[in-house]
Amino acid sequence: MSSDRLSEQGEKIKFIYKGIEMSGIVVSHDSRQFNIKLSSGYNISVPNDSIEITESERIQVSHQHSSPSHDQDAEVEIIATGGTIASRVDYITGAVTPVFDPGILGENIPNINSFRYDVKIMDPILSENMTPEIWQNIGNMVKESQMVGRSTIILHGTDTMAYTASALAFMFRSLHRPVILVGSQRSSDRPSTDAFLNLEAALEFSRINIGEVGICMHSSISDTSVSLLRGVRTRKMHSSRRDAFRSPSVPPMASYVNGSSSVNPDTTPCSTDSLDFKPSLEKKVSLVYFHPMMEPEDFSALSEGKKIVVIAGTGMGHVSSKLFEPLKELSKEGTRFMMTTQCLGGRVDLDVYSTGRRLTELGVIPLGDMFPETALVKAMHVAANYPEEKFRETMISNMRGEILSREVEF
Amino acid sequence: MSSDRLSEQGEKIKFIYKGIEMSGIVVSHDSRQFNIKLSSGYNISVPNDSIEITESERIQVSHQHSSPSHDQDAEVEIIATGGTIASRVDYITGAVTPVFDPGILGENIPNINSFRYDVKIMDPILSENMTPEIWQNIGNMVKESQMVGRSTIILHGTDTMAYTASALAFMFRSLHRPVILVGSQRSSDRPSTDAFLNLEAALEFSRINIGEVGICMHSSISDTSVSLLRGVRTRKMHSSRRDAFRSPSVPPMASYVNGSSSVNPDTTPCSTDSLDFKPSLEKKVSLVYFHPMMEPEDFSALSEGKKIVVIAGTGMGHVSSKLFEPLKELSKEGTRFMMTTQCLGGRVDLDVYSTGRRLTELGVIPLGDMFPETALVKAMHVAANYPEEKFRETMISNMRGEILSREVEF
Repeated sequence: MSSDRLSEQGEKIKFIYKGIEMSGIVVSHDSRQFNIKLSSGYNISVPNDSIEITESERIQVSHQHSSPSHDQDAEVEIIATGGTIASRVDYITGAVTPVFDPGILGENIPNINSFRYDVKIMDPILSENMTPEIWQNIGNMVKESQMVGRSTIILHGTDTMAYTASALAFMFRSLHRPVILVGSQRSSDRPSTDAFLNLEAALEFSRINIGEVGICMHSSISDTSVSLLRGVRTRKMHSSRRDAFRSPSVPPMASYVNGSSSVNPDTTPCSTDSLDFKPSLEKKVSLVYFHPMMEPEDFSALSEGKKIVVIAGTGMGHVSSKLFEPLKELSKEGTRFMMTTQCLGGRVDLDVYSTGRRLTELGVIPLGDMFPETALVKAMHVAANYPEEKFRETMISNMRGEILSREVEF
Repeated sequence: MSSDRLSEQGEKIKFIYKGIEMSGIVVSHDSRQFNIKLSSGYNISVPNDSIEITESERIQVSHQHSSPSHDQDAEVEIIATGGTIASRVDYITGAVTPVFDPGILGENIPNINSFRYDVKIMDPILSENMTPEIWQNIGNMVKESQMVGRSTIILHGTDTMAYTASALAFMFRSLHRPVILVGSQRSSDRPSTDAFLNLEAALEFSRINIGEVGICMHSSISDTSVSLLRGVRTRKMHSSRRDAFRSPSVPPMASYVNGSSSVNPDTTPCSTDSLDFKPSLEKKVSLVYFHPMMEPEDFSALSEGKKIVVIAGTGMGHVSSKLFEPLKELSKEGTRFMMTTQCLGGRVDLDVYSTGRRLTELGVIPLGDMFPETALVKAMHVAANYPEEKFRETMISNMRGEILSREVEF
């Protein structure tokens, strides 16, 4: 039985979602998705084309079930996007593929029963396949949660988590409730998984007075402590360790150690101001990592047709002088170039060296100590939402804590 | 008076080199360069087109000066390539430009008089302008020094120092004497310069039994300690701090603290084996830093016409699935793709995730925990010096300490 049949409210179904058999009552159904109250008691939303209904039975829905929709009183919305935290090992091939089994929540997270939560399941992907369109979909879901005073926990792959966190951070001028991205370095069906402690901590952090977008991951390799790090200042610094995420020079916004959470008093508190949600993103952009073998034609090829090019230069923000000519030509055609440093530590300063001064003359905008990844996402946001004449000023000004300092540390 | 006139041995000249007036006796002169014994007592070599002779006087050369050439008994060859360590501040504009004043050595480095050294001055450049041709020139000079049992100290800009260090490391299968790249984060005419302590330490390290290519820079922000780090495992991690260079997971090969040096016993000692100098480098190569906005056409443009493409992927070595098609097409045309991780910590493993397995099927070679920058240089070396059928095996095998571990750290 395929999923394109219409299911009625008050219909009990068995279905397969990404290989997992589940059962529940269809709460609502539209052209995009099914909302289903699972037998385990919580609600999930799944896209029509990802669900296969194997049995259905029309049932008498009692009055208290007649309009259950999502839990109106939920404090937290959990959005599963995929990633390792929502992945399973295929024990035939040994490979990990993304599929989320909501059953893991109730079974493995000790504090979950003290929260009212809803779960929304997106078509699961590994985060290297994330796109700005999905960032926008997530942004819309976060907006809906914010409007009803709910925190958001986003299960997300770790590889590009910092990009998504930055995108969400720039989309909202202020937040009424915390927005927390949580991932894991080992899938949740492995004994060594870090998924459950990270989720346990994310739930605790979701109740804290933090009006920022954070990344919630282990702060040490032992399975005892978790940090909430500022999304726009965080980077995955190890391919496999559980404590891979770091926000150099910025202390965690909150910590969870041995079951207790604490908040850093410098963290931005929740706001009652307008969210000022701006999901638009400029997509003709590129991030160019300079290296000594980069030829002028490579640089041109990467930059042509782009509105914005963020360069990750060496040191204080340098590229070979042989790239100056294509940079000049493309600037004339309207491409905006900005400079960050591939050192990751410290800041760009184009006034120190003669070659840097030449870049300034060519109109390259130095972005202080902003990470290259954050700079790319910020530029996408600023180009799509601010007038042309405000672009430079907005890029070099701190918006969400993405710029720490405009001074060189000597 | 221009520099294209022939100067004779036994001629005393005054000349201007990059704005600095010097005087000395012309020791030899050919179509490329002048070798001059300076009044301060040491020898320099300068390219013909970088020197302006302002006065010349034929003098009676006494017998002991009749064939001074370079100091035959020098223990160490100092090669000045440019960079901040060989730069001066222009106090009119405030910008730093590369020019080396050999006078700084005698005046500022307390231990220099206990060494016999020669100085060779190349046309000074900032290191973002370094090219493989210059790596090869430096390699040839190192070879000459090695043949006569001299250590080499290379003054070099910090931005791409790790690339040059890697290139030299791969060019020599074994080394008879240490090869040390030394730089500074502040130019040597500033009171806060780190140049002199780094050079003082480099001189001490040049006497140690180390048969490797090292990077010699401050190990803390105070002006008291210097480390010699393995060239193929070192990265500039801060744009301005004096202790910018780090070799994560690899202890320093040697340390210099408060005037005393010590060597790590695990460091490769000097060898008496053949140098097996292989300077050839494949130059049709690229380093591609993946990000979520990278479109298939960007990836194609970067890779087209390249023999080798080193990808810096996310996490364990991932790129978006939308790049698989161009990768497949370009592989068919003969481009070799290799994978490193932009996390910098940890290693690539293409067997864990389903998307990684697809990359393996497409022929992408996983490079363990090799840094992307080192991988690029190693690939240039291996492609130019090993038979085609040995390429893969040589790339994934440890040659100079560039691969630490083939295991994922869980």
